[in-house]
Amino acid sequence: MSAPLRYLLSDDEMPTTWYNLVADLPEPPPPALHPGTLEPAGPDDFAPLFPMELIMQEVTTDRYVDIPGEVLDVYRLWRATPLHRARRLEAALGTPARIYYKYEGTSPAGSHKPNTAVPQAYYNAAAGVRKLTTETGAGQWGTALAFACQMFGLECEVWQVRASYDQKPYRRAMMQAFGATVHPSPSEVTEYGRSLLAADPDNPGSLGIAISEAVEVAAQDPEIRYALGSVLNHVLMHQTVIGEEALLQMAKAGDTPDLIIGCTGGGSNFAGLSFPFIREKLAGRMSPVVRAVEPAACPSLTRGVYAYDFGDTAGTTPLMKMHTLGHDFIPDPIHAGGLRYHGMSPLISHVYELGLIEAEAINQTDCFAAGVQFARTEGIVPAPEPTHALAATIAEALACRETGEEKVILTALCGHGMLDMAAYDRYFEGGMVDYEYPAEQVAAALSRIPQVPA
Amino acid sequence: MSAPLRYLLSDDEMPTTWYNLVADLPEPPPPALHPGTLEPAGPDDFAPLFPMELIMQEVTTDRYVDIPGEVLDVYRLWRATPLHRARRLEAALGTPARIYYKYEGTSPAGSHKPNTAVPQAYYNAAAGVRKLTTETGAGQWGTALAFACQMFGLECEVWQVRASYDQKPYRRAMMQAFGATVHPSPSEVTEYGRSLLAADPDNPGSLGIAISEAVEVAAQDPEIRYALGSVLNHVLMHQTVIGEEALLQMAKAGDTPDLIIGCTGGGSNFAGLSFPFIREKLAGRMSPVVRAVEPAACPSLTRGVYAYDFGDTAGTTPLMKMHTLGHDFIPDPIHAGGLRYHGMSPLISHVYELGLIEAEAINQTDCFAAGVQFARTEGIVPAPEPTHALAATIAEALACRETGEEKVILTALCGHGMLDMAAYDRYFEGGMVDYEYPAEQVAAALSRIPQVPA
Repeated sequence: MSAPLRYLLSDDEMPTTWYNLVADLPEPPPPALHPGTLEPAGPDDFAPLFPMELIMQEVTTDRYVDIPGEVLDVYRLWRATPLHRARRLEAALGTPARIYYKYEGTSPAGSHKPNTAVPQAYYNAAAGVRKLTTETGAGQWGTALAFACQMFGLECEVWQVRASYDQKPYRRAMMQAFGATVHPSPSEVTEYGRSLLAADPDNPGSLGIAISEAVEVAAQDPEIRYALGSVLNHVLMHQTVIGEEALLQMAKAGDTPDLIIGCTGGGSNFAGLSFPFIREKLAGRMSPVVRAVEPAACPSLTRGVYAYDFGDTAGTTPLMKMHTLGHDFIPDPIHAGGLRYHGMSPLISHVYELGLIEAEAINQTDCFAAGVQFARTEGIVPAPEPTHALAATIAEALACRETGEEKVILTALCGHGMLDMAAYDRYFEGGMVDYEYPAEQVAAALSRIPQVPA
Repeated sequence: MSAPLRYLLSDDEMPTTWYNLVADLPEPPPPALHPGTLEPAGPDDFAPLFPMELIMQEVTTDRYVDIPGEVLDVYRLWRATPLHRARRLEAALGTPARIYYKYEGTSPAGSHKPNTAVPQAYYNAAAGVRKLTTETGAGQWGTALAFACQMFGLECEVWQVRASYDQKPYRRAMMQAFGATVHPSPSEVTEYGRSLLAADPDNPGSLGIAISEAVEVAAQDPEIRYALGSVLNHVLMHQTVIGEEALLQMAKAGDTPDLIIGCTGGGSNFAGLSFPFIREKLAGRMSPVVRAVEPAACPSLTRGVYAYDFGDTAGTTPLMKMHTLGHDFIPDPIHAGGLRYHGMSPLISHVYELGLIEAEAINQTDCFAAGVQFARTEGIVPAPEPTHALAATIAEALACRETGEEKVILTALCGHGMLDMAAYDRYFEGGMVDYEYPAEQVAAALSRIPQVPA
């Protein structure tokens, strides 16, 4: 047997708590605000959308929250996920760097999204909710929630961004296989959707629009609640099982990361891997650089403003302080459909402002090139989203070839690309383009964000 | 923590040998015959197509063959695979039966096929081969071989049955992502393909035709060899890692199977799970019923004849004694594209004749109904192929509800369906039909198999 390529955990070693980074930050993140009063939003402001258990998780300052046994039982369908050492990629790059990737693609949905879909479905079912509504971009989140709803006997209704709905029919079929109802967004089903289609029947949709539609339906019926796949504190907290496992697995590998790289859309995958390591960094037990990588076509962290803005396009959610390109900015239809949200998670935005993480933006053709190189060396075709992190990882590893540095890089392979092969097809055919940064559209969208006094 | 849902193996527990059922059978299987002389085919007859190590594995009577360390290193990307207890499906069926499934979908190709693709690529690379050619039906095998060739630096050229090539573009893209060249079959690339297209430009292809094309190209160049994804002894032997792992995992579960069910096309998945259990049965250590389930549209075991026939449509391979529908029979384009081979593995055919296994055939709409029920309870969307085994499993479990029998059923979930969602779409839309058994076409095809004196 040669040197290990993979580090596993037994069922006994699986984490049984989620980690809440808020408990360890030097200052708390700014609160969400009620859009009318501009006062801090309280639990009641979220009650039409979420069950109380999740609202309490959203605002808790406890360091750890126990994972219910019913959730652990479903996690065990695929968790713990493997940590791989990318020895074949290292060899192909001729780098002295040691590259590790935490692979979330073995889940039933093929991505990290079930880590939060399962507890969200569980807590809603426990609260007597009948149906969950949600948005989905690439379809990863919608697939995960459809799966999770089936596990706990809930109905599921999904608004899928039309650009993805058209590009990725397999994701729709997958949600339907899990029993969900799927609408392209904007849809004729909601008042907001109808208003947009009346103005432009070809509206390609955006995550913000889809959120508005799902929220509109949930808010009208006490038996229906809404579920968000990223951005919020409780979502990020559920994803920390990724990083807690990776900490144990890196210890088994006998290595400590010098650099942690994750892709960011709303930020849940990035937070899931990195937050437990940031805890270790704040405690002085290790000192990794932590980097978020976002698409150049939707660069909220690197090009957005840090301001209070709506979470959805219609402007119906509480205001959240975050890096935003404007709540009605519609990004170009890049193939990493999951990374097309106008804002960054408020908690990640806060952590960025505190200087605990860094960020960069990468063009999609560079990302797909990295994805193909990864597939042909490591044997796993990555989803378009994590190819952003892989492109940055490969660039770092090549820099190490020049410097000779044996840097330890840990990255998040948050899903496989089997349902994204149409995007790879486009790339192979040479039909994939990089979009110019839409400075004018962003400036216009930013002019429409609400003015909140400091 | 509730009762366990899944049984894992550590890296230390992974099997390090393949199992050869031939060593334990009461009589040896009939030899392959040279099609000209009708004498038993020797290693030299296979040498234009396969490297000598694989030919030796094809004819060995050794009980166990060591798995090379280089192959184990690649296996560890995803092996050992999990054994799951289908408690949610059991609950939905209200059955006292205990259902276990061995899940092979966590592999980089999403199916069991890499279990043999990896060693085949390894032995060819070790023999100095530059390129492998192969056929693929649904694309599972082609994807697996493309992946495996990348792991060992080989080129890969694939002929994909045209019906699947058109129905399943994601599989083609996946093979290309792994660096393979893919042709629809019949193709203009080979003499045989051109002859078929000249007669019928709309020829939908068949596995037998695709094999003929891949064999034609391999036989012309000593640097090119051919790889077969099922049927042959060495392929079945490589797949026994599935059953060897399952034996250990069933022991951890504290259960012994009363019934083992696997789907069969060429037979490799079925053999992989069942052969180690048949060893235990022959040794008197357990007594499971072992059942092969095949599509009603391509029922080689239940409706074919047991006779010497060609492995390919052009009639270029050695003759093999097997259950066959005739080497030029082209089955209807059912959605379980991987189960459309005209013959059954000679070794499985022999085992069937010895009375060690039983067989049944099921229509595709019944299979998809079972697949949807499985997805909505167990959370994994199965590939169309294993839905045949699931349909039989569910029928057995429902029978147990009537009798009260706590039967222990073990089945093979040999792949997920993420690249087969177009077939599910067809099913949901009500556009999927069951084909009548094509008695006339089969009778005509059987009239054209070679006459071999007993």
